[in-house]
Amino acid sequence: MEFTGSHILSIEQFERFDIERVFTVADTMEPYAQRRKVTRVLEGAILGNMFFEPSTRTRVSFGCAFNLLGGEVRETTGFETSAIAKGESLYDTARVLSGYSDVICMRHPAVGSVSEFAEASRVPVINGGDGPNEHPTQALLDLYTIRQELTAKQRGVDGLRIAMIGDLKHGRTVHSLCKLLTLYNNIQLTLVSPVELAMPEYIVDLLRSAGHSVFISQDLNHSIANVDIAYSTRIQEERFGSKDEADHYRGRFRLNQAIYTQYCEPNTVIMHPLPRDSRADANELDNDLNLHPNLAIFRQTDNGILVRMALFALVLNVVEQIEGSSRDVNWYRGQR
Amino acid sequence: MEFTGSHILSIEQFERFDIERVFTVADTMEPYAQRRKVTRVLEGAILGNMFFEPSTRTRVSFGCAFNLLGGEVRETTGFETSAIAKGESLYDTARVLSGYSDVICMRHPAVGSVSEFAEASRVPVINGGDGPNEHPTQALLDLYTIRQELTAKQRGVDGLRIAMIGDLKHGRTVHSLCKLLTLYNNIQLTLVSPVELAMPEYIVDLLRSAGHSVFISQDLNHSIANVDIAYSTRIQEERFGSKDEADHYRGRFRLNQAIYTQYCEPNTVIMHPLPRDSRADANELDNDLNLHPNLAIFRQTDNGILVRMALFALVLNVVEQIEGSSRDVNWYRGQR
Amino acid sequence: MEFTGSHILSIEQFERFDIERVFTVADTMEPYAQRRKVTRVLEGAILGNMFFEPSTRTRVSFGCAFNLLGGEVRETTGFETSAIAKGESLYDTARVLSGYSDVICMRHPAVGSVSEFAEASRVPVINGGDGPNEHPTQALLDLYTIRQELTAKQRGVDGLRIAMIGDLKHGRTVHSLCKLLTLYNNIQLTLVSPVELAMPEYIVDLLRSAGHSVFISQDLNHSIANVDIAYSTRIQEERFGSKDEADHYRGRFRLNQAIYTQYCEPNTVIMHPLPRDSRADANELDNDLNLHPNLAIFRQTDNGILVRMALFALVLNVVEQIEGSSRDVNWYRGQR
Repeated sequence: MEFTGSHILSIEQFERFDIERVFTVADTMEPYAQRRKVTRVLEGAILGNMFFEPSTRTRVSFGCAFNLLGGEVRETTGFETSAIAKGESLYDTARVLSGYSDVICMRHPAVGSVSEFAEASRVPVINGGDGPNEHPTQALLDLYTIRQELTAKQRGVDGLRIAMIGDLKHGRTVHSLCKLLTLYNNIQLTLVSPVELAMPEYIVDLLRSAGHSVFISQDLNHSIANVDIAYSTRIQEERFGSKDEADHYRGRFRLNQAIYTQYCEPNTVIMHPLPRDSRADANELDNDLNLHPNLAIFRQTDNGILVRMALFALVLNVVEQIEGSSRDVNWYRGQR
Repeated sequence: MEFTGSHILSIEQFERFDIERVFTVADTMEPYAQRRKVTRVLEGAILGNMFFEPSTRTRVSFGCAFNLLGGEVRETTGFETSAIAKGESLYDTARVLSGYSDVICMRHPAVGSVSEFAEASRVPVINGGDGPNEHPTQALLDLYTIRQELTAKQRGVDGLRIAMIGDLKHGRTVHSLCKLLTLYNNIQLTLVSPVELAMPEYIVDLLRSAGHSVFISQDLNHSIANVDIAYSTRIQEERFGSKDEADHYRGRFRLNQAIYTQYCEPNTVIMHPLPRDSRADANELDNDLNLHPNLAIFRQTDNGILVRMALFALVLNVVEQIEGSSRDVNWYRGQR
Repeated sequence: MEFTGSHILSIEQFERFDIERVFTVADTMEPYAQRRKVTRVLEGAILGNMFFEPSTRTRVSFGCAFNLLGGEVRETTGFETSAIAKGESLYDTARVLSGYSDVICMRHPAVGSVSEFAEASRVPVINGGDGPNEHPTQALLDLYTIRQELTAKQRGVDGLRIAMIGDLKHGRTVHSLCKLLTLYNNIQLTLVSPVELAMPEYIVDLLRSAGHSVFISQDLNHSIANVDIAYSTRIQEERFGSKDEADHYRGRFRLNQAIYTQYCEPNTVIMHPLPRDSRADANELDNDLNLHPNLAIFRQTDNGILVRMALFALVLNVVEQIEGSSRDVNWYRGQR
């Protein structure tokens, strides 16, 4: 695809070649995200960070990514009081807001809203999540992290062995990641969830049509025995079909230090889309793995900065100019 | 008037000469708003964008205008939790906040609040709307748009023929625009509204005292037959005096493609202060005109950037320095 | 202490020498805060201004201080919708957010939350208030103001005579200021409050252990007769133990022009942490002193900028580089 001026709305718009292009550019962003260097390539440009549904983490990540390229950020953080709530069409909102900024990130609770907005926008739009539908930068940062963790082991994404754990029925994140993985070869997926929260059939079909091996399981322990990545997601109690089912499964998808040590290969990398519920009764990835070197969950969020910087640089066509406008950082750069 | 260091609180502080000065400066902002050039003239300056009442559009427009001049923006977007709500006087708020920034934009629900704030402020204050009272930058961008649309036809504002349509009783926007038009010569106004939502008498008197021709009508179709500008505004259902009146008038002030084609001169420009209600039962400008080249409603919001940039440049006295600190834009500039 | 890379969590981490270091650096920030000069020393750096409890004034002050050093600010302004409210641990929040920015300011309603957050953060954290516990930058700006007001009289903080007035039981501000004053010599404090809202015993003990003279009083008028500083704070009606007590004390801690003129020495400086309740029935510092030259309450908030700039410059280790990256301001600089 041609990135300059394009909207980034769905992972389905990418070919494997496009994804590799994003990741190659993301790699070059590392010195800036690590505060070894600073670039001013987008000095004077404005990101309209339009969050019509709150999401502190994603909003701040997009904003920081744009700031790290030298640009400014104007934003909105809620829905109720906006003109949209008073009957303004997405068409009008898009025509107006796209006159203010150079690129727009948008999150909105309604499925398809960001695409509708993008059609009327005069500047590129990046989907920051349209309800349960798409959140393409999350899927890209997940795949980028998988690639990065495997690269450290002299491997590529082809041939990956991955277990996905938790609520696979409602998880937008795992659905998108599965779709991206259909672009790669020879993947082995183990899908671990309660029966009632299983991965939708159509996604399993997509994976098998791509030639991948898919195993379905309700048992955490043995499913994570031979994988490169254990990708954990949250199960909200209210998602279970019944109180009985909730009682039956409670805690059985909670990956912790003991289970990891007993069942996983020593190199298995643990991922999670975050946020996770760290309260004692959560059906979640446990805190006792927090200091484990194979816990990649914060490398994932760090990588979100790289991937978002790459997308901004690509759609605004400044990739080739970044290094020329860079210099060394002159302040304390934290424990990075 | 002397702009440097002045507050911009009301359209009544402007003479015709002052308005022309603002518009002449606004014209020079176009290369920056169009992202052909970037200027850093206000690099290091801070706008305090203090919205004690939410208004995404106006807030973001002010913020972007300041960013486009190279400055930074710090802002607040609500009222309830602020110190003002706990009994702090506007005097205290102004003394404190004006120590933080170089210029302040303020929106507040109470009539006169922004003027009271400005009296105590140590930096220039621009009124972003004080309840139903004043919103001078909206009035200026409306007049600037009229001037721009007429200039394209080798005409000036003098001699303008304009129809104002909708709720003319409560519309802050049309009241302010009428007051500005008293500074010009030989205007012909047709005021189209339900009887109970008619333009206040004192404004009609102001217009007639300025030598303008004013026609009052309840009939949309024939009122827009011979005008340069059809300025449509919203009628909220709850504004009607009775259910009967609402039933009687519903849809009768809704300008659409069919009515436009049948009744208007081919050059008639359509304006609206936005936001508009695009739901099917709204008493509003119709969506079926969205692609019409004479629909100027998004040129209006675009012009808001130019007018606000001009005001910032004037009150901070940097007009003459802008071009010297400018360079070409190096990123993709959208479909402008 | 070593400032580079340090968290600023509590006034108890400072020795007198450290405080003098902060104040000496704060002095050098004056040309920038006064808009005589502009510096770009932190151009490209990002402040994460994470306010999980609203506070317009403190949030904007931190943000402006960072902007004045040339850095960018990304922020959040509420709690309810954040991941923290959905069970995310402060550990996770800190690991994620500290990957986005170069320094974090955090306000949070829970005692100890900011310290817990800082432990997991990869970048320096500045406490912007953790509930009733600590708000170290307020304490520092108060002491900086005292030092500045006394310096104008060729005096230092040693030997200070100060009256603290109002709700001394719940006032986080006066508690912190007292603790800072234990680092100095020969202070004379008069603590004026209703009996039920008296300064906690442990703080009185700290002061006396430091060799200071402490007088306890319920009478405003004679307590302010021989002091350098009258530090007034608010008494919220609901803090009184009973309706009877409220009736008994109402208005008796309200410093106004008449009382000031009758009882104070002509040089006595009036301070208040702000915001104050300016409604007629408030138990507060009166508005009729607003124009008095000894009213230092807005010099206090102005000094907040200097102190916060100093802390940013110290923890990010750019103090020595500021002047080299500075230039004269080229815009109208307000009535400073």
